[in-house]
Amino acid sequence: MTLSGSLLIGQRDVGGTTHFHAVNPATDARLEPAFACATHADVEAACRLAADAFDPYRALSFERRAAFLEQIAVCLGENADAIIARAGAETALPEGRLRGEMGRTMGQLRLFATLVRQGEWSLPRIDPALPDRTPMPRADLRQRRIGVGPVAVFGASNFPLAFSVAGGDTVSALAAGCPVVCRAHPAHPGTSELVGRAIRQAASTCGMPEGVFSLLGGAGHEVGEWLVKHPAIMSVGFTGSYAGGTAIAALAAQREVPIPVFAEMGSINPVYLCPQALAARTESLARGFVDSLTMGVGQFCTNPGIVIAPEGDAFESFVRIAAETIATRQAATMLTPGIHAAYDTGVARLAQCAGIREVGQGSDDGAPNRGRPMLFRTTAEDFMRERTMRHEVFGPVSILVSCPDTATLRVLTESLEGQLTITLQMDDADMDLARTLLPVFERKAGRILVNAWPTGVEVCHAMVHGGPFPATTDTRTTSVGTAAIERFLRPVCYQDLPDILLPPELARANPLGLTRQVNGTMQPPA
Amino acid sequence: MTLSGSLLIGQRDVGGTTHFHAVNPATDARLEPAFACATHADVEAACRLAADAFDPYRALSFERRAAFLEQIAVCLGENADAIIARAGAETALPEGRLRGEMGRTMGQLRLFATLVRQGEWSLPRIDPALPDRTPMPRADLRQRRIGVGPVAVFGASNFPLAFSVAGGDTVSALAAGCPVVCRAHPAHPGTSELVGRAIRQAASTCGMPEGVFSLLGGAGHEVGEWLVKHPAIMSVGFTGSYAGGTAIAALAAQREVPIPVFAEMGSINPVYLCPQALAARTESLARGFVDSLTMGVGQFCTNPGIVIAPEGDAFESFVRIAAETIATRQAATMLTPGIHAAYDTGVARLAQCAGIREVGQGSDDGAPNRGRPMLFRTTAEDFMRERTMRHEVFGPVSILVSCPDTATLRVLTESLEGQLTITLQMDDADMDLARTLLPVFERKAGRILVNAWPTGVEVCHAMVHGGPFPATTDTRTTSVGTAAIERFLRPVCYQDLPDILLPPELARANPLGLTRQVNGTMQPPA
Repeated sequence: MTLSGSLLIGQRDVGGTTHFHAVNPATDARLEPAFACATHADVEAACRLAADAFDPYRALSFERRAAFLEQIAVCLGENADAIIARAGAETALPEGRLRGEMGRTMGQLRLFATLVRQGEWSLPRIDPALPDRTPMPRADLRQRRIGVGPVAVFGASNFPLAFSVAGGDTVSALAAGCPVVCRAHPAHPGTSELVGRAIRQAASTCGMPEGVFSLLGGAGHEVGEWLVKHPAIMSVGFTGSYAGGTAIAALAAQREVPIPVFAEMGSINPVYLCPQALAARTESLARGFVDSLTMGVGQFCTNPGIVIAPEGDAFESFVRIAAETIATRQAATMLTPGIHAAYDTGVARLAQCAGIREVGQGSDDGAPNRGRPMLFRTTAEDFMRERTMRHEVFGPVSILVSCPDTATLRVLTESLEGQLTITLQMDDADMDLARTLLPVFERKAGRILVNAWPTGVEVCHAMVHGGPFPATTDTRTTSVGTAAIERFLRPVCYQDLPDILLPPELARANPLGLTRQVNGTMQPPA
Repeated sequence: MTLSGSLLIGQRDVGGTTHFHAVNPATDARLEPAFACATHADVEAACRLAADAFDPYRALSFERRAAFLEQIAVCLGENADAIIARAGAETALPEGRLRGEMGRTMGQLRLFATLVRQGEWSLPRIDPALPDRTPMPRADLRQRRIGVGPVAVFGASNFPLAFSVAGGDTVSALAAGCPVVCRAHPAHPGTSELVGRAIRQAASTCGMPEGVFSLLGGAGHEVGEWLVKHPAIMSVGFTGSYAGGTAIAALAAQREVPIPVFAEMGSINPVYLCPQALAARTESLARGFVDSLTMGVGQFCTNPGIVIAPEGDAFESFVRIAAETIATRQAATMLTPGIHAAYDTGVARLAQCAGIREVGQGSDDGAPNRGRPMLFRTTAEDFMRERTMRHEVFGPVSILVSCPDTATLRVLTESLEGQLTITLQMDDADMDLARTLLPVFERKAGRILVNAWPTGVEVCHAMVHGGPFPATTDTRTTSVGTAAIERFLRPVCYQDLPDILLPPELARANPLGLTRQVNGTMQPPA
């Protein structure tokens, strides 16, 4: 599998008239080959193919849909070395991390294959006819969920595999029966093309309709805008910045037919240190925090951007140890020159906030695009006064906030914006405080952790990688884990259909052997 | 229970400085008393109370929440005669219809009480810790769904009980654990106040937090706008016009924190007459259609506004019999002078479309605000050319569309906008055509009916009263039936929480005895 720089429109390679190059962020060197920028006609062609593929794709059996997802994992595995090498050059992520991410991506595909095969994601509901009911008989009513239609996927820069071309949005859309038109992230076009070719190969091997997947690239915002505005696109999955996510959501809301946008835009992921835990475990908490903060050069949506703790001696010790620890950490190459520049700008902006003070930083060798770990401190009062401190700075920077009393802690917590995660470090003696804070945390975050660190998102059934705005544009969902499929489904009700016209999920004989809801009660297959 | 014209802000009656009156549409007479128009401060007070009530209300046991819903039904029942009398004066709906609607409203409250008590609506998902997993252990991850926060409810004019103050939106929000601030429909303020008092009485009897319910009235759009823009409001339920629903959705999208809007805006509900069914059952289809069209003066979201059939002798017979039948139907009072005026305007606009022809009409005695049943015919070609014909005219008017061949039928179907329902009248010999159309219907509508009529929406578990835009602003949901609760829920994930902090749905001992998803598989209680 070699790189051509083409767009992948269905099974066709399409060249371009304008091109762009990837950059190796570790060296600022241009990487070959040149990549085609999609034109409006290319977007039109890919969306049209996707629309044509929707009915035939969703009509395939769950088994065939599952086999397709598994085959994508196989094709990724067969090309893993080439993909990881290219991803390393394009993102500066270490090979070990990329191998782990490849494993996660393949595991995610297999997890969704299992989900699709089980079939209960379609949530079949049956209210059988009651012909003798008075005063009016009841019709036979059956509900299942089907895909919403073609989905536009915008890959993330920070997970070039697990949240990009074959990542969580793509796999949950394909699992839901929706064709995908993916807009390749311009920071890793080569990785995108290689992964896209693996998906295309799997589609061909499994006899999928041609338009089930297309990959479009481009250097600017145009391709994404055309895609979101295209009438064939019925939903959007996005992982990236607040600016990007809200711009796409605004475009989608202004369409003649508005469509939902599931944008995961990150957050500052507050960590609360309860008094007893802080006193008893000052050093391990400080070290654990710095590990979580600096992991992957802080380039995680769930990076702990603020630590909130009671003021006093224990907090002062925590600050000192965290500062000492961070001084031992080195700056490392960030994902792109743009992300590095935004990080430096964001840190500089924080440094200028009233009432903030720098307390520690990592070392920096001055090589290109290195993100240097940074630690600030402030008070609850200053934090609440200065809105700048509430906004995520993507990278290894965090603010330690001291709080004079529980009342202020409560007010500060209420003042927070929506978060992906909130973490509570607590011991048994902190239980009353935890009980007070928990209902507020539930309103503010998608995931609440106790005595853990927020970086690291398990791909499983119970995960929520989501949360109230501005963490995401839709708090009712998750973009990680099997519940992510729900974003791309909608219910359809069938009234009095003859059995021969019913989909197998709803047919009277239950040929798929599903657990179905009957008259409001879950009923296993006979 | 007597009418005071007050706003109901929590347990307080609040008078106004400006007022408006209801009108009896049958006589155009003003109805006493005067009703207060809510001020911005009133909206603020109600929303603030709702925000304060959210945590205590959602913390109550499912049993107490269910008992509250049941008590609302009891209080409605105790005041049914007064409510029905006032609703009759404000809407001109016949007493029998209103008694049926009251029964439906009470039944809906009890259905949701049962749902809440069962508890599985919270969709508990558990992925237990895997401490020995390599290379990384897995944390204990548990997910449940909680309410999104205070919900603004906009009642519908055409269901003054079942889709208004204590209707489907209110009950599904309260069931989800969300306080409700209801904007009373200005067409039935007295009915709204009486129903609001019943809810408030139930809230008091059941010891609910004060802000769990408030009712705000007003004559214009201001109150609704303040409500949708208020930061405490986290979601909106609306049933009404396209103009109203899209205006609210636009306001909600422009908020600093955008919120979802579930607006059900109606549709033209196409009815397809397949060739064999049309030939075999011409007369019964024509009569059944006119019955469905004229029921309730055509004032249903699911009214059959267009009939599509193959051209030819059978269609001509259908047109003739339908025209003869509609001539026997009389005009009847519509819900409001405004709805009547819009109906007349809409019919006049249809009559001016190129290629349309009036084929029948009911009789009209000239009394105020009477909607006269009207029937038009056109061809598929003209229908596709003239966008006006695709837009709902709320009331007893329908267009009969003749189609030259199956290819045109398919193109016409693809050209349709999103619909609440699509109905197929078919016999066994029409099976191939039905199979061809069904996938398109699934993309276009929330509910597909065979050999039935779309008017009449069962409140049950499998119902979908929803559909692609412009039928609604969110195709992923329903506003009727138990699945309507999902609109007002969001998932929260708990990682490594000690058992004592877990909500009962997720606690290790499963104290509520719920069926829970464990490692992706449904597991009944031990």
